[in-house]
Amino acid sequence: MNRNDVTEMIIEAKVRKGLKWEAVAERVGQSKEWTTAACLGQMTLTEQQAATVVEIFGLPPEAARWLQVVPYKGSLPTAVPTDPLIYRFYELVSVYGTTFKELIHEEFGDGIMSAIDFRMDLQREADPKGDRVSITMSGKFLPYKTY
Amino acid sequence: MNRNDVTEMIIEAKVRKGLKWEAVAERVGQSKEWTTAACLGQMTLTEQQAATVVEIFGLPPEAARWLQVVPYKGSLPTAVPTDPLIYRFYELVSVYGTTFKELIHEEFGDGIMSAIDFRMDLQREADPKGDRVSITMSGKFLPYKTY
Amino acid sequence: MNRNDVTEMIIEAKVRKGLKWEAVAERVGQSKEWTTAACLGQMTLTEQQAATVVEIFGLPPEAARWLQVVPYKGSLPTAVPTDPLIYRFYELVSVYGTTFKELIHEEFGDGIMSAIDFRMDLQREADPKGDRVSITMSGKFLPYKTY
Amino acid sequence: MNRNDVTEMIIEAKVRKGLKWEAVAERVGQSKEWTTAACLGQMTLTEQQAATVVEIFGLPPEAARWLQVVPYKGSLPTAVPTDPLIYRFYELVSVYGTTFKELIHEEFGDGIMSAIDFRMDLQREADPKGDRVSITMSGKFLPYKTY
Amino acid sequence: MNRNDVTEMIIEAKVRKGLKWEAVAERVGQSKEWTTAACLGQMTLTEQQAATVVEIFGLPPEAARWLQVVPYKGSLPTAVPTDPLIYRFYELVSVYGTTFKELIHEEFGDGIMSAIDFRMDLQREADPKGDRVSITMSGKFLPYKTY
Amino acid sequence: MNRNDVTEMIIEAKVRKGLKWEAVAERVGQSKEWTTAACLGQMTLTEQQAATVVEIFGLPPEAARWLQVVPYKGSLPTAVPTDPLIYRFYELVSVYGTTFKELIHEEFGDGIMSAIDFRMDLQREADPKGDRVSITMSGKFLPYKTY
Amino acid sequence: MNRNDVTEMIIEAKVRKGLKWEAVAERVGQSKEWTTAACLGQMTLTEQQAATVVEIFGLPPEAARWLQVVPYKGSLPTAVPTDPLIYRFYELVSVYGTTFKELIHEEFGDGIMSAIDFRMDLQREADPKGDRVSITMSGKFLPYKTY
Amino acid sequence: MNRNDVTEMIIEAKVRKGLKWEAVAERVGQSKEWTTAACLGQMTLTEQQAATVVEIFGLPPEAARWLQVVPYKGSLPTAVPTDPLIYRFYELVSVYGTTFKELIHEEFGDGIMSAIDFRMDLQREADPKGDRVSITMSGKFLPYKTY
Amino acid sequence: MNRNDVTEMIIEAKVRKGLKWEAVAERVGQSKEWTTAACLGQMTLTEQQAATVVEIFGLPPEAARWLQVVPYKGSLPTAVPTDPLIYRFYELVSVYGTTFKELIHEEFGDGIMSAIDFRMDLQREADPKGDRVSITMSGKFLPYKTY
Amino acid sequence: MNRNDVTEMIIEAKVRKGLKWEAVAERVGQSKEWTTAACLGQMTLTEQQAATVVEIFGLPPEAARWLQVVPYKGSLPTAVPTDPLIYRFYELVSVYGTTFKELIHEEFGDGIMSAIDFRMDLQREADPKGDRVSITMSGKFLPYKTY
Repeated sequence: MNRNDVTEMIIEAKVRKGLKWEAVAERVGQSKEWTTAACLGQMTLTEQQAATVVEIFGLPPEAARWLQVVPYKGSLPTAVPTDPLIYRFYELVSVYGTTFKELIHEEFGDGIMSAIDFRMDLQREADPKGDRVSITMSGKFLPYKTY
Repeated sequence: MNRNDVTEMIIEAKVRKGLKWEAVAERVGQSKEWTTAACLGQMTLTEQQAATVVEIFGLPPEAARWLQVVPYKGSLPTAVPTDPLIYRFYELVSVYGTTFKELIHEEFGDGIMSAIDFRMDLQREADPKGDRVSITMSGKFLPYKTY
Repeated sequence: MNRNDVTEMIIEAKVRKGLKWEAVAERVGQSKEWTTAACLGQMTLTEQQAATVVEIFGLPPEAARWLQVVPYKGSLPTAVPTDPLIYRFYELVSVYGTTFKELIHEEFGDGIMSAIDFRMDLQREADPKGDRVSITMSGKFLPYKTY
Repeated sequence: MNRNDVTEMIIEAKVRKGLKWEAVAERVGQSKEWTTAACLGQMTLTEQQAATVVEIFGLPPEAARWLQVVPYKGSLPTAVPTDPLIYRFYELVSVYGTTFKELIHEEFGDGIMSAIDFRMDLQREADPKGDRVSITMSGKFLPYKTY
Repeated sequence: MNRNDVTEMIIEAKVRKGLKWEAVAERVGQSKEWTTAACLGQMTLTEQQAATVVEIFGLPPEAARWLQVVPYKGSLPTAVPTDPLIYRFYELVSVYGTTFKELIHEEFGDGIMSAIDFRMDLQREADPKGDRVSITMSGKFLPYKTY
Repeated sequence: MNRNDVTEMIIEAKVRKGLKWEAVAERVGQSKEWTTAACLGQMTLTEQQAATVVEIFGLPPEAARWLQVVPYKGSLPTAVPTDPLIYRFYELVSVYGTTFKELIHEEFGDGIMSAIDFRMDLQREADPKGDRVSITMSGKFLPYKTY
Repeated sequence: MNRNDVTEMIIEAKVRKGLKWEAVAERVGQSKEWTTAACLGQMTLTEQQAATVVEIFGLPPEAARWLQVVPYKGSLPTAVPTDPLIYRFYELVSVYGTTFKELIHEEFGDGIMSAIDFRMDLQREADPKGDRVSITMSGKFLPYKTY
Repeated sequence: MNRNDVTEMIIEAKVRKGLKWEAVAERVGQSKEWTTAACLGQMTLTEQQAATVVEIFGLPPEAARWLQVVPYKGSLPTAVPTDPLIYRFYELVSVYGTTFKELIHEEFGDGIMSAIDFRMDLQREADPKGDRVSITMSGKFLPYKTY
Repeated sequence: MNRNDVTEMIIEAKVRKGLKWEAVAERVGQSKEWTTAACLGQMTLTEQQAATVVEIFGLPPEAARWLQVVPYKGSLPTAVPTDPLIYRFYELVSVYGTTFKELIHEEFGDGIMSAIDFRMDLQREADPKGDRVSITMSGKFLPYKTY
Repeated sequence: MNRNDVTEMIIEAKVRKGLKWEAVAERVGQSKEWTTAACLGQMTLTEQQAATVVEIFGLPPEAARWLQVVPYKGSLPTAVPTDPLIYRFYELVSVYGTTFKELIHEEFGDGIMSAIDFRMDLQREADPKGDRVSITMSGKFLPYKTY
C-alpha cells in the first residue's frame, strides 16, 4: 500500500457511497478546498483527521498512517492538462501570467505570492445571465531580499 | 510592425517613462487587470482605448491599428513557466487541479468555469504576519449539454 | 473499479457482442456522437442513461455509478496523436488553426467557439468520385468582455 | 524574401489597409476559408490568384512567385496551441478523437477522412441564446486496402 | 482482452512456433508487408483472414473478433524511435524530408503521397559488395484542391 | 556566411529563376534525388559540382567553399514534422516501423538497412484511378557482428 | 533595450574590462552570490545599486532603469541544462530530490524550504586531496497550513 | 524482485513501523543524508550496511543482495519535478545556475563541482522570524585539463 | 514471456547467483562488452550462445528462443539518461559531438562511423593519481556516396 | 561579441582559409581532439593559446579575451542529435548505456568515469574491408563515497 493506493480507495469509496466533499470537510473540520486536496493526495493530515477520513470512507486501518505521510504532490498526469475544466486554469496562467507578474510587482515589489502559505475559497455566484464560479485566493507575499 | 512589436514598445516606454499600470488603467477606463493584459498583448482594444494607449506610451500612430487586432494569445515562453512568481500559479493548477475539478462538478455538475466570460481582481490584503496577495476570479459556469 | 475500467469493459463488450454505436445511441436516446463520446469516457450520463448503458453492455451494477461521475477528459495517449484517422483532425488544426482564428474574429470579434456548448453531427455524403465524411460542428460564440 | 516574409507582409498590409478576408476571397474567386489559409501560407496559388493577392495587399512583384510555391505547411508555433480560440479545436480532437474514429470506422470501415481532398465552410448560426459558430467539414473517405 | 493483447499473443506464438511472416502471408493470401503490419496491430482483417490468423498462431477464439476491429495505429513506443533499424527510416525522413517535398511538388504540384492508398514491397537485392534491402513504395498522389 | 545561408540563397534563386530540380541535377550530373538533397544542405559536393551549383543559382563565389563542407544534417524544424506531405512519411515509419524491422530481420538476420550507403529513385507511376508516387529505396544491409 | 540586452552588455563589459564578480559585489555592497545573480538578470536592484552597476560596467544611462525592473527569472536555455557544471546541480536534485524531501519533512513536517527568503554562500574549502567547492544554503521553512 | 521493489518495501515498512531516517542512519553508521539516499535507491550499500537495513525494515533476505547492487540512479518521475519542495531546488538551479557557474569559474577556473565526490549536511537553523533549512554541500573541484 | 521478461530474469539471476559478466562472457565465448549487451537485451544470440546463457542463469527453456529473436534495441528509459554514469557518456556526445564530426570528416570525408559494424573494449588503466576507465571503440567508416 | 560569435568566426575562417584542425592543433600545441573542441566553444584557452588561435584564424583582437572565458558548454542544437554522424554516438549510449554501467561497476564498484578528467584520441585504423574510425577514451574513475 502507498499513498496513491489510498487516494484511489478514497475516490472509489466516494463514488460507491455517494458522498459529498462538503460533508466530508464538515466532519474533518476544515474547509472543503483543503479537505478535498488532502483526500486527493496533496496535503498531510493529522492523526485525528486521518482517523476521521478512514472512518468516513471505510478505509483499511493502515491507510491512516499513509494519510499522515507528506505526499509527493502534483495531481495531474501531464504537464499541460487535457481535461477541459483544469485546462481553463492552465489557460488563465498562460494568458494572465505576465499580468499577475506585473501587478503583484507593482504593488509589492520583487517577490512572489506564496502557494504554501495559501488558502482559497470556491463559491457559486448567482447571476441572472448564468451562475458563475467565484474563487478567492489568498497567498502571503514573500519578498526577495538582498544579502 | 506586428502586435509583438507593439507590446515590446509598450514595455519599453513604461520603463522609460516610469508609468504605473494602475494609472494606465484609469485613463483607459477599465480595470488594472484587463488593461495590463491588453497592453501585454492578450486582449483586444476598441478604437478609443487604442488611441489612449498610443498617447500614454507615445507609440507610433500605426500601433493603434495593431492594438485593435485580436492577438495570438499566450504570454509565456515555455509550457512550464520558469519565473518563480508565475510558476507558483502553475503549481496551484498542478496541486489543486483535481480539487478545482471535484468541487466545481460537485456544485454545478459537468461543465467548466469559463476563462473567456471571466473577470478578476487582485488586491493587497493587509495582515500583521505579512501582507497577502488576494485574487478574486469569477468565471461563468458553462455546462456540457447532451444532444 | 474506476471510470477507465468501465470504458475498457464497454469497448470489450461492444466487440464481443458486435454492437453498433448507432444502435446504442438510439436506446440511450441521444445522438450517436454524444453517446459514443460518453461511452468512451468523455461525457457524464444521467442515472437513466447509465442504467441503459449498463444493460446494453452487460456491465456490473457498480459501473452505473461510475458512468454518472464526471470523467477526467482527454481520450488520446499522446499530445500529437499517432493514429492516422485522428491525426488528420490534428493536421486540420495545425494547417487551418490560424484560418479558424481569422474568420471567427472577422465575423464575431474577439472570443472563441465554445467546445462545451457544442454539438456535432457526422454523416456519409454520397459522392460519385468516392463518398465523403461530412461533419457539422456548432459551438456557441463566447465573446471576451472588458471589465 | 521567402514565403514567411510574404505571409507577414500580407498580415501587416491587411491591418494597415483594414481589409476583410471575405472581400479578399471574393476578388480571388475562391471561398473565404481557402483564401484565408492560402494568404496565411498554407495553400498554393495559381499565377492569376497570386497576381490578385499581390495587387490587393500591395506586395512587391517577386511575392507573386512565392505565392505559387508550395509552402511548408503548419501554421502554429507550438504542438499544443496556446491561443484559446485555436486550443478549443485541439480540445475537440482530444475529447472527441476516439469518437471520430469509432463513428467513421462504423460507417465506412478502416480508412481516414482526407485532410487534402477536403473543404470547409464556416458560418454564423443565429441563435436567441447567443449566436453560434457553425463549421461544416467535408473530406473524402480514403479506405485502407489490402495488397 | 484487447487488440494489444492479441498482438502480443501473436508475437509470442510466432517465437514459440518458429513461424515466418512470409509463410503466414501466403496462408492469409496477402503480401508479407501487409500481413505483417496486420498481425502487428496496424491493419484490419476480414473475417476469413482473422480466422486464418487465429488458426496459424493458435489464438483463443475471441481474438478473431479483435483482429476485425480497426486498431489504434502507431507501432512505436517513442516519437523518435530508439531501435537502430527503425531509426534509420526516421533519419531518412529527417535528411530527405524536404527533398521528398520538393520533388513530389515539382512533378505533381501541391498535394501529398497517400499513406493510406499505399502499398509496398521489400526485397533482397543481391550485390557483390554486400546484399541490399530494396523497398518499393507506391502511394496515390492526392492533390490539394481549391474550393 | 554559413551553409544555411547558402541553402536559403539556393531556394530563393530557384524561385526567382523558376528553375527545376531535374534540370539542376542534369547539369550537376547526379540523380535528381541526390542533387536536391545536396542543394537543400544535406549532402557534400565536389569542387566541380559546387562550381556548377554556384553558376546555376548565381551564388557568390565563397558559396562554392561552403557547398564542399560536410553539413550538419537534418532538414526538418520539428521532431514530428507538421507539413502534411512530410508527415505521411513519418506516419509510414510509425505504422510500418515494426513491420520493416520484422521483415528485414527475417530475410537478413540482425542488422540494419544503411541510410548512408543508400540511393533512392522517385517516379510518377501512371494509374487510371489517379497517378501514384513511386519511390524505390536501396540501402546496403549491415549485419551486427559478434566480437 | 530590455533587461536581456542589459545582461548581455554586462557580460560583454565584464570580459572586456577583466572585472571580477567579487570586486563588483564589494562596490555594490552585497554578497558576491546575490550580486552576480542580479547582474545576470535574476534579481532587482535599488536605484543606488543600479547606478553603481551602470558605472562599473560603463552601461548607457537608461540601463539603470532596467536594472530596477523585476526581471522574468530563469537563467537557463533548456529545462535540463547541458553545461556540465550546471548539470551537476541538476543531477543533485535528481539523485537527492527525494532525500531532501524526506529529511526536511522529518525535521519540519509538511512544507518547503523557501527559494525566495533564501541566501547562499559559496567558498573554496582547502583540502589536501584537492580543494572543494563548499556551498551553504539557507532558506526559511514555510509550513503548509490547514484552513 | 529488483531494486525498485526493495525501495518500495523500505518506504512501506518505514511508514508502517513509524521509523525515523535519523535513527536508521545511526544504526547504519553513516550520515542521515547518505543513508536516506541509499535507502531510497540512489546509493550502494556494503554487505554489513545492507544486513542492517534488512533487519531494521524487516525485509526479505534476498533484499540484502539488491541493496549491494549499484542502482540506476535518478529519483524523480519527471524531468521538471512537480512536488513543490523538490521544485524549489530545481528553481534554485534555474535561477542561480549561471551564478554557480560564474563564481566557481572565478574561484577555480574551468571545471566542475563533483556530484560524486560529494557530501552534504542538512540542519535546522533556529531563527526568531521562522526557523530555516540550512544545507551545506561540499564537492571536490574537478578541473578540465588540456591534453 | 517476451524479451524484456528474459532480460529481467537474467538481471535477477545474476544478482541472486552473484555472477560476473566477465565469467559469463568467457563461457559464451565472446567479449564481455558484446555479451553484456546481449544479456541486457541489445544483441541477438545464436542457438548455442542462447543455450549457454539459459544454463548459466537457470532460465526457463523457452527463454532460449527469445534470446535468438532480434530485440527492439535501446536500453534507456529516458531520452536524456538520469543515471550519472550513463549521463557522462551523453555529456561527452553533447560536448564533443561537433568535434567528433569535424575530425572524422577531416580524416575521411562525408560519412559516419558505423554503430553496427562496431566493437569496443573497456579496460582498467592503472594510474598513480587514480585508476582510469579506458574504452577503445572501433567502427567502420561508411562514406556517403553520390548517385 | 560573445563566445558564440567567436566560434562562428572560427568556423567561417576555417572554411575560407581551408585550414585543417590537425594543423591548428599543432600550432596550439595540444591534441587535435582538445583543440577542435576548444575552437568549437567547449574548452577554455590560456592567454597564449588564445593568441595563437586569434592569429591562425585572423580574428579581431577582442576575441582573444572571449577564448579565455569558460564557455557555456553543450555543442548540439537538440537533445537527440539529428546529424547522422553524431546520432551514431547517441545510439551507442542508448544501446550500450546499461552495458557501460554494468562493466564499469563490475570492475570499479559504484562511481563514474569522469567526463572532465578525460582525454581522447581519434585515429584512422586501416582495414582491408574498409578503414575504421578508432577512438580511445580515458576518463578517471571517480568512486561514490559514503559520508
